[in-house]
Amino acid sequence: MNDVTLLILPQVRDLLEKEDREALRRALAEVHAADVADVIASLEEPQAAIVFESLTERQRVRTFEHLEETDQLRLLEALGRGKMIHIIEEMSSDDRADFIQALPERTADSILPLLAQAERNDVKRLVSYKERTAGALMTSEYASLPADVTVGEGLTRLRKIAPDKETIYYVFITDAERHLLGYTTLREMVLARPEQNISEVTRHPLISMSVDSDQEDVARTIQKYDFLALPIVDAENRLVGIVTHDDVIDVLEEEATEDVQRMGAVEPLDIPYLRAGFWQLLWRRGAWLLFLFVGELFTGTALRHYQATLELVLSLVFFLPVIISAGGNSGSQSATLIIRSLAVGEIHLRDWYRILGREIGMGLALGLFLGAIGYSRALMWGNGHLVALAVSLALVAMVIIGSLVGAMMPLLLKLCRLDPGVASSPFVASLVDVMGIVVYFNIARLLVL
Amino acid sequence: MNDVTLLILPQVRDLLEKEDREALRRALAEVHAADVADVIASLEEPQAAIVFESLTERQRVRTFEHLEETDQLRLLEALGRGKMIHIIEEMSSDDRADFIQALPERTADSILPLLAQAERNDVKRLVSYKERTAGALMTSEYASLPADVTVGEGLTRLRKIAPDKETIYYVFITDAERHLLGYTTLREMVLARPEQNISEVTRHPLISMSVDSDQEDVARTIQKYDFLALPIVDAENRLVGIVTHDDVIDVLEEEATEDVQRMGAVEPLDIPYLRAGFWQLLWRRGAWLLFLFVGELFTGTALRHYQATLELVLSLVFFLPVIISAGGNSGSQSATLIIRSLAVGEIHLRDWYRILGREIGMGLALGLFLGAIGYSRALMWGNGHLVALAVSLALVAMVIIGSLVGAMMPLLLKLCRLDPGVASSPFVASLVDVMGIVVYFNIARLLVL
Repeated sequence: MNDVTLLILPQVRDLLEKEDREALRRALAEVHAADVADVIASLEEPQAAIVFESLTERQRVRTFEHLEETDQLRLLEALGRGKMIHIIEEMSSDDRADFIQALPERTADSILPLLAQAERNDVKRLVSYKERTAGALMTSEYASLPADVTVGEGLTRLRKIAPDKETIYYVFITDAERHLLGYTTLREMVLARPEQNISEVTRHPLISMSVDSDQEDVARTIQKYDFLALPIVDAENRLVGIVTHDDVIDVLEEEATEDVQRMGAVEPLDIPYLRAGFWQLLWRRGAWLLFLFVGELFTGTALRHYQATLELVLSLVFFLPVIISAGGNSGSQSATLIIRSLAVGEIHLRDWYRILGREIGMGLALGLFLGAIGYSRALMWGNGHLVALAVSLALVAMVIIGSLVGAMMPLLLKLCRLDPGVASSPFVASLVDVMGIVVYFNIARLLVL
Repeated sequence: MNDVTLLILPQVRDLLEKEDREALRRALAEVHAADVADVIASLEEPQAAIVFESLTERQRVRTFEHLEETDQLRLLEALGRGKMIHIIEEMSSDDRADFIQALPERTADSILPLLAQAERNDVKRLVSYKERTAGALMTSEYASLPADVTVGEGLTRLRKIAPDKETIYYVFITDAERHLLGYTTLREMVLARPEQNISEVTRHPLISMSVDSDQEDVARTIQKYDFLALPIVDAENRLVGIVTHDDVIDVLEEEATEDVQRMGAVEPLDIPYLRAGFWQLLWRRGAWLLFLFVGELFTGTALRHYQATLELVLSLVFFLPVIISAGGNSGSQSATLIIRSLAVGEIHLRDWYRILGREIGMGLALGLFLGAIGYSRALMWGNGHLVALAVSLALVAMVIIGSLVGAMMPLLLKLCRLDPGVASSPFVASLVDVMGIVVYFNIARLLVL
């Protein structure tokens, strides 16, 4: 909810109470559909449905497109299929396919036969593409023209088809079998003379992607070239749809959220935190927590191994958490830097040796720094020089080990074609905790006993 | 570097070796400026400059805009100000301002006087806005029309000004003092009859933002409304620039990178990992590592406090890392979920009690789960029931405490108008480590001694 919604909502509630639908219509007439959607999402039934029904038809369609899936379903249930079917038919093709796909199967099956043939086929085709591919992201409502028309004729045709198209700013040039030949822009068509042939304003190079492409690759391509839309083709280079600039933002945001959640050791949620079911969230956290816990239990095994050492010099225990956490923290830093750089394409697997060199240097510098502080602290607590030396050497070693494990683990995961983001801070910390105990007590045994 | 670049680069290197500039020009003529920029970034001097000089002038401008700051500076040094000044004049106004701002001050001072008056004033105005505001992000090359023209006349005017404008798809309607009155789109102008007045195709509602707005708010607004461009106004509602859709992606990506780095306990870098200087990176990691280390030293203080307990039951030590890490891991999960949800606007401060309730339930369920495993493990290691009970109760308590601290810390930071992302996994872990020791040994003293 933003400022606009906060401003309108009290007025809307007031008009709802007065049951003044005409005033409601007027109040919302000049409000952007994205804000109307926010208002509806903030209301309970039947108020939400009353507000929705008070909108103009065009606004209803646009507002419905802006709603979250749960709110869409709520309206569908409140208003019934009969009232909603026309809205669904008028939705833009990608939003409509997403909406149908999110419905419970029985509801979807009861709605599909009610749609007009063209829309029904469109939905069936779009939902057939695998999730997270260009096919699942694209809209089939692109503007296209044959190669042999003049610019003036092209503009006349565009005027006719424009109302049904997601964008007419990019116009794709195809042959009779829909093979993609090129593209032009409305800007260039408007700037050209009407009698020029469309081929004279066709742009090069033509960049397109396959319908099977990963959605993140599609988003990165649009980002790189600053496109408004990217043409999506099938295996025979036939134009099947376009992905538009606004989808890119949502895809990159979704991918960033997944990366962030993985890095915090949560299986990606796909839905907002407060909307996720308790058991769903429990499972996505519990699985990771269990995995990390079982790994961490090995610290107990390692410590038992050094029981004799501990019985002789109990004060070694006092530095245990600080040593293992120093390794975990430096590892977390390295993992974070490498995972994000991989995600945005700043580094690649082939850079591994440069990363390795850098992390060894970084780990050594940071380790010596913390080691020096650890040394003085140990002396201050009345330990001997040898215990202090063991603590500081263990700190140096652990910060180096942490940095290396943190930096190399994401690269290793990527090499195995796994998600580098799995190398979360807790995961790296668990890995180096056991190493920390082994390193620390071995150094201590050498120096102190 | 992507597939296109990998494909072209060997050919470019080959032509450079043969010193065949004409073939080089032809080979790159149909390549997108973004890819040419990648090629140039992959080459050393003087090859990079040779490739740049072989481009058409239009391509040189677009390619230069796509280059990273360091590569821009490299070309400027290789080719000299004389050859570059025309390129700089032709750059789009936001890219030009960014370029000048990134230059060493002396270089910038030597270039500014060479620019034509209009461009010089434009740069001076744009660089005067504070970083990370709408003003620093916007371009002054928007298309605008007065309110009293017909659509046909408007299109004629647009044709004239189009070459200098970042986009003509959104056309802003202003009065003689540049006060923003509304906007229309090229689509609607093309669809309208030429004799209609422009006001008949002017859109409502008009959404604009102030020049001082935070860049993230600007990006979120464009994302929400799926705009191609958002008008930016000064305090008197005069149009001063527009922010376009492609800038949004870069802003959101930059903000996501910062969030991620903070969550891994690294001060945000602003530049790619491999380009960051060693000392620069060292400082951004070292500061956090030191802070966490000093915090973690209190675990030693706490452990010393329980020295007598440890001397009696040394085996309590074996479970120490696993108990404190369970708290840290569940805290890391909660912090990650809440920080990301706050960043994308899914939750707000006012939701705190719902979050609190949810995290208590989640912490209890997860804690009981880990506690049960911990109990059996303790028995298996030959500990008595009371030690096992202390371990499992400490686990339950720590997972709850971790979840609560992890979830509430970002909200608390936000309440204090600090960045919630500061509540990184290592930060939360450090906070709960000391609590873990206190909780564990107090439970153990009660049950075991």
